[in-house]
Amino acid sequence: MEVVVLRLSHRPGRDKRITTHVCLVARAFGAEGVIYTGIKDEEMEKTLRKVANTWGGPFFVRYEKSWKNVVKEFKSNGFKIVHLTMYGLNLPTVLPKLKKFKKVLTIVGSEKVPKEVYEYADFNVAIGNQPHSEVAALAIFLDRMLDSKVFDNKFEDAKLKVIPTPKGKKILRVK
Amino acid sequence: MEVVVLRLSHRPGRDKRITTHVCLVARAFGAEGVIYTGIKDEEMEKTLRKVANTWGGPFFVRYEKSWKNVVKEFKSNGFKIVHLTMYGLNLPTVLPKLKKFKKVLTIVGSEKVPKEVYEYADFNVAIGNQPHSEVAALAIFLDRMLDSKVFDNKFEDAKLKVIPTPKGKKILRVK
Repeated sequence: MEVVVLRLSHRPGRDKRITTHVCLVARAFGAEGVIYTGIKDEEMEKTLRKVANTWGGPFFVRYEKSWKNVVKEFKSNGFKIVHLTMYGLNLPTVLPKLKKFKKVLTIVGSEKVPKEVYEYADFNVAIGNQPHSEVAALAIFLDRMLDSKVFDNKFEDAKLKVIPTPKGKKILRVK
Repeated sequence: MEVVVLRLSHRPGRDKRITTHVCLVARAFGAEGVIYTGIKDEEMEKTLRKVANTWGGPFFVRYEKSWKNVVKEFKSNGFKIVHLTMYGLNLPTVLPKLKKFKKVLTIVGSEKVPKEVYEYADFNVAIGNQPHSEVAALAIFLDRMLDSKVFDNKFEDAKLKVIPTPKGKKILRVK
């Protein structure tokens, strides 16, 4: 299954670290890349390209002005649209349906999500109905959809690799 | 199982939203509460108490100066110490052992974690060996340890409850 993440309404000051975490989770848990809307943030993009360069890829981060155009583009390319929101149906109840899709665009909002997003989405899906975090919601969603790929995800051309160890840090320099 | 979260080295400017997300995830996914070190942040504590007041409890947030004292206190009260880090052993390999514990103190760091934390921890555990997010790591850890409690966690004295719905928002005012 191919999953791309759409992050809405990024504000470089307030959201830099949260959006960065969204992107890092997307990469580590097996999504192809992240498209974000809001305000373009060169510095954040640079940080993420550096991570993909050091720890391997492929992984993309792309800015777009209009979330609606992104959704239309992906719908016309056969993607199903899944919006993560605490108001949606809980993941376990819809997961069997979602697992059948080949291509999914996952939308994660920030503070205020336009009403239209709920309408454009094929599924509005909750990771529990309590306020928590789009970073956590995305992690649990990808974990279930991509069969816990985070624990054995392989990246190409990594310069560094971690050797799991019970105490301290072991890092292998590959090139 | 009783899980308490220890968040290290909070800096109110840089970390406010990430630490807030850590705390919200702790609550939503079933931990008892969060202790944080670093710099005391009244504003963040207020935000979190407001969430617990609106969406229900019990849930605590507490500031402590010394992480070492917290670890010693919890160890002497029978807690096992699990430090989440990308350098540790992957969760699936240690989960059967961890699930046997009755009380767990979970440490999540920020940018630089003191070497001693790795030594004081009974287990250093990775949610994959790639850089991503302490918010995501905590979510996956609690999801596995507390059997996906996020999907049916009950809170006492909630003023608001969400009714899961396929489109839009349905919120029930309980009191």
